Amino acid sequence: MSENATVAILMGSKNDLSKIQSCLDTLKEFGVSYTVRVMSAHRTPEIACTFASEARAKGTKVIICAAGMAAHLAGVVAGHSTLPVIGIPVSGGAIGGVDALYSTVQMPPGIPVATVAVNGGKNAAILAVQMISLADESLADKLAQYKIDMAEKVVAHDAELQNEI
Amino acid sequence: MSENATVAILMGSKNDLSKIQSCLDTLKEFGVSYTVRVMSAHRTPEIACTFASEARAKGTKVIICAAGMAAHLAGVVAGHSTLPVIGIPVSGGAIGGVDALYSTVQMPPGIPVATVAVNGGKNAAILAVQMISLADESLADKLAQYKIDMAEKVVAHDAELQNEI
Amino acid sequence: MSENATVAILMGSKNDLSKIQSCLDTLKEFGVSYTVRVMSAHRTPEIACTFASEARAKGTKVIICAAGMAAHLAGVVAGHSTLPVIGIPVSGGAIGGVDALYSTVQMPPGIPVATVAVNGGKNAAILAVQMISLADESLADKLAQYKIDMAEKVVAHDAELQNEI
Amino acid sequence: MSENATVAILMGSKNDLSKIQSCLDTLKEFGVSYTVRVMSAHRTPEIACTFASEARAKGTKVIICAAGMAAHLAGVVAGHSTLPVIGIPVSGGAIGGVDALYSTVQMPPGIPVATVAVNGGKNAAILAVQMISLADESLADKLAQYKIDMAEKVVAHDAELQNEI
Amino acid sequence: MSENATVAILMGSKNDLSKIQSCLDTLKEFGVSYTVRVMSAHRTPEIACTFASEARAKGTKVIICAAGMAAHLAGVVAGHSTLPVIGIPVSGGAIGGVDALYSTVQMPPGIPVATVAVNGGKNAAILAVQMISLADESLADKLAQYKIDMAEKVVAHDAELQNEI
Amino acid sequence: MSENATVAILMGSKNDLSKIQSCLDTLKEFGVSYTVRVMSAHRTPEIACTFASEARAKGTKVIICAAGMAAHLAGVVAGHSTLPVIGIPVSGGAIGGVDALYSTVQMPPGIPVATVAVNGGKNAAILAVQMISLADESLADKLAQYKIDMAEKVVAHDAELQNEI
Amino acid sequence: MSENATVAILMGSKNDLSKIQSCLDTLKEFGVSYTVRVMSAHRTPEIACTFASEARAKGTKVIICAAGMAAHLAGVVAGHSTLPVIGIPVSGGAIGGVDALYSTVQMPPGIPVATVAVNGGKNAAILAVQMISLADESLADKLAQYKIDMAEKVVAHDAELQNEI
Amino acid sequence: MSENATVAILMGSKNDLSKIQSCLDTLKEFGVSYTVRVMSAHRTPEIACTFASEARAKGTKVIICAAGMAAHLAGVVAGHSTLPVIGIPVSGGAIGGVDALYSTVQMPPGIPVATVAVNGGKNAAILAVQMISLADESLADKLAQYKIDMAEKVVAHDAELQNEI
Repeated sequence: MSENATVAILMGSKNDLSKIQSCLDTLKEFGVSYTVRVMSAHRTPEIACTFASEARAKGTKVIICAAGMAAHLAGVVAGHSTLPVIGIPVSGGAIGGVDALYSTVQMPPGIPVATVAVNGGKNAAILAVQMISLADESLADKLAQYKIDMAEKVVAHDAELQNEI
Repeated sequence: MSENATVAILMGSKNDLSKIQSCLDTLKEFGVSYTVRVMSAHRTPEIACTFASEARAKGTKVIICAAGMAAHLAGVVAGHSTLPVIGIPVSGGAIGGVDALYSTVQMPPGIPVATVAVNGGKNAAILAVQMISLADESLADKLAQYKIDMAEKVVAHDAELQNEI
Repeated sequence: MSENATVAILMGSKNDLSKIQSCLDTLKEFGVSYTVRVMSAHRTPEIACTFASEARAKGTKVIICAAGMAAHLAGVVAGHSTLPVIGIPVSGGAIGGVDALYSTVQMPPGIPVATVAVNGGKNAAILAVQMISLADESLADKLAQYKIDMAEKVVAHDAELQNEI
Repeated sequence: MSENATVAILMGSKNDLSKIQSCLDTLKEFGVSYTVRVMSAHRTPEIACTFASEARAKGTKVIICAAGMAAHLAGVVAGHSTLPVIGIPVSGGAIGGVDALYSTVQMPPGIPVATVAVNGGKNAAILAVQMISLADESLADKLAQYKIDMAEKVVAHDAELQNEI
Repeated sequence: MSENATVAILMGSKNDLSKIQSCLDTLKEFGVSYTVRVMSAHRTPEIACTFASEARAKGTKVIICAAGMAAHLAGVVAGHSTLPVIGIPVSGGAIGGVDALYSTVQMPPGIPVATVAVNGGKNAAILAVQMISLADESLADKLAQYKIDMAEKVVAHDAELQNEI
Repeated sequence: MSENATVAILMGSKNDLSKIQSCLDTLKEFGVSYTVRVMSAHRTPEIACTFASEARAKGTKVIICAAGMAAHLAGVVAGHSTLPVIGIPVSGGAIGGVDALYSTVQMPPGIPVATVAVNGGKNAAILAVQMISLADESLADKLAQYKIDMAEKVVAHDAELQNEI
Repeated sequence: MSENATVAILMGSKNDLSKIQSCLDTLKEFGVSYTVRVMSAHRTPEIACTFASEARAKGTKVIICAAGMAAHLAGVVAGHSTLPVIGIPVSGGAIGGVDALYSTVQMPPGIPVATVAVNGGKNAAILAVQMISLADESLADKLAQYKIDMAEKVVAHDAELQNEI
Repeated sequence: MSENATVAILMGSKNDLSKIQSCLDTLKEFGVSYTVRVMSAHRTPEIACTFASEARAKGTKVIICAAGMAAHLAGVVAGHSTLPVIGIPVSGGAIGGVDALYSTVQMPPGIPVATVAVNGGKNAAILAVQMISLADESLADKLAQYKIDMAEKVVAHDAELQNEI
């Protein structure tokens, strides 16, 4: 992980680390450098805003934000950057994730957050890789291979199933 | 309206003015000074954060924030002030207000937003007056009278009804 | 805990005590006196109404009400007092907390309940402290310090994370 | 309408009159005496509580309560009477009726509210008649006839349809 | 339990017995005779319809129906009887009880079901007792005493709490 | 329309006719005979149950049921027949269709209802045709043609769009 | 299981096997041949589309699709076949099944999916048998017997209950 | 509009054109070439799949898909391309947009759809521009200017408001 990582993953609380592990693993799998930071839209707003404001100039390409409940982190970061911001709504609390989903996806006109499924860490990573691949042929190739691998895994599961039943 | 108003009402979009008119009217009715500002957590985050950071020192007692959809304004303001922040979720958009309610009320531990009903402008004003009344006997008296007036209105409606039916 | 506590915390059932422990702990942390009472809007309505009606005269500043399901306690108390009333919707039952949230927050015009997140006991306490701090400089200072401490904890977590990953 | 009506219909706001008209019409159709009152669980709590407390002794058999949003009226009345209380959740406001439904039906153990559909004024009336019919043979006969009439109306509609298509 | 029980409790599946145990216990507590039957609106429709059709003539006063998911039992029974029918929506399945609540409470005009909270077995029993008490003074007295006992329990819990904290 | 129609369409209320017009039109388009009847699970239960019980013997292949709110018609009919039963949840009332959807689709094990979208009359018809086509080659051909026609309409719309923009 | 099975059951992930076991068991009970395949609308779209396109010609009568979250499998398969397609929304993920239900049932006009309850594997099987029974008298007889058996089981449970209580 | 447009906007129905007009306008404003196509995941699946499969090779950078109800278009397209796919859930139908939101955002691991708000056409366009700007400095500058313009508009609205009130 370095200052000049391609992808920055911000989470509102360190407790959410386990929920975004698949995001980190997937970025690693694609060989995309990343940095992971704990920052809060409410508890350390200046740090989050400064980070967001400076990210583009430092070479960050995509910012991924994971937060739960009234999940404002992605929206706040999107307000301070022209980079694409991906939001991962995180489940938790009594309402169970729909609150985080609405708080992340229902952004007003002008400030988009690219929202993935609740707890969708892996998809956030793939989406980031897809964005970066627009100017990186080798990543595009890796994505194509990834799609093939996924398909083969399904085919293998299907074959196993035929033997089992 | 003055710089040193007791209550600051922030709204994310000027379009929401009609939805908070009852808030302004009620504050006026109680003789509480207020300022109304258009500020956006996403479009003018610095203005909103600066306003929130400086509000207490300028004499503001309560900040009321009205916003719709992924309503982050109240939460962002609460992150920058130790004043009580009241959130009015505003209806609008395809999800119709539950998105704004969740985004406003489901704040993480440490940063409360005192949330009223969707489009609950009048109640936001009364709640602000109640808070200020803790150190203002005359406001406490007005609130007591307000309660009596409300009750009398209900009693009058009941009497009218008996005549009508 | 004394008769003349600054904050009164009412809960509809003694079973909810564990759900509001963080509320009590936080008030203690801020040095704000409180009393905790079990009262029910439905089972002991007279006690709840009398308590609410007399609270202001006895020196109570804020009433916090915690209840689940069709959570009427905060609304009923708010109907009998001009003090600010904070509502904590408590999860439980098959609908899981949205019922308590709607029953607490969707108050009709004239009778506000300052609603926090489902099970948001800590935030109810901080919101109460914020209200009281309007006339108590030392509490305002403590709130400012609390905000700094929260931020430092996030920064510390971020630093730990950098070492771990 | 008289003091000693068999059914008391309470509504939180005079505005809800149109929403319960079918309730009144149906009671009239069955020849059951009723009184309609505007009372609020929050604005005139003493009136509502006193009315509920005294209803049984005055000869009231069933209390029907219609209210919207955080609809507490039926629950509060049920807290003050041992009579069966029927709750009509009334639509209105941005959340559109589910808030009133949850606030009415999700009563805690010990204090039931017999809840009908959102805006279900006619069914509240029939339910009241069913309850009263337990000790009134002529009402039981009218209910049986009512069921026959409903069926005949459906059969007639079906016949009309066969002609039309 | 006898053929001529005052209250009939029907459940769609024997598995729901544990969910309505509090209903049976409460009826026993009030000394109201009851019968419990397993009947299904879908699997044994004739039995359910016949039972409902004949219940009034056999002396049944109230029919309580407990069912989950697309809970049709109460509605079907209400279609075949002029007795008051109480519906207990039972939780279970992936949607968790809101499906049963909607299927029970949202009855069309003409055929009411008196709906209590999801899994609200105890309240179904009390509601039934309230209905029967309209023509039974001794039950009315028991209900009044029950209310007093509930209140005393709350007061006792409050007293315990004062000692504990 | 004849006694021995292949498809029977039942609706709970004549008011729903406009909502199922597309169902009738589509069946006509496919040349499948149908009968439309107004029957209610609650108001004319015997008629509905008898109709369902006898449908198979009379040559009916598929029964389509349209109902709103606590939509029990499809479930009740499915309880009385071994024919495939298609349920159309109809919007209407304050909850707006989710109540009808849950009441139709969440059937307990053993008694399926093939549920289509809220107000999905056209799809109910196509689904019925698909079922009947299993033993009717000409219908299978028509379905194949229908799919081609739909695709061509989309292609035509696409072409128009290219000209317009 | 054979190439030319009457019913094809497709699931989006091998993990869902346990959730559709009751579907397989029920088809076996009715003596209807089936094949089970793992195919994904998103990971192996060509396989799924090809399978759907060729199913009718290969003798398949009904396709059952089980998928969770944004469950597209049934809809995609329905887009490629004129056979009746049954969709089983599978629970899982933070939203818990309503997402899968909406994604499965709310199909646009022209492409129906016969949707059963969330996790409703057994009902999917019975519905398939009902469809096939339209041209198979022996299956119709088995369905009639199945209905009788279900009823007898309920009657037996009722009898047991009378002994137990 | 050209074959080799940078952004492809697909919509499931030509009726949705008005709902994505802001998307087209915004892309035009940024000088990003686009093509708009009507394609359906269910009615013209081959066209949609072929389009998606070939888009990358033809120079498309981002695919935006707008669809309502059980909105499968974005997911199906994402299954056939390694390009970033943006999904716009479109309101319509009785469930009003939450169905389209869930169907679009709750994608299973491996196949992300970057979801924006219901009817969020403008944000879909901005998000696409942000993605493309990663390799296009002039677009990055335009985005920075766009953010400034948005802020100035808010400031201007605020100034107007001060004059009006």
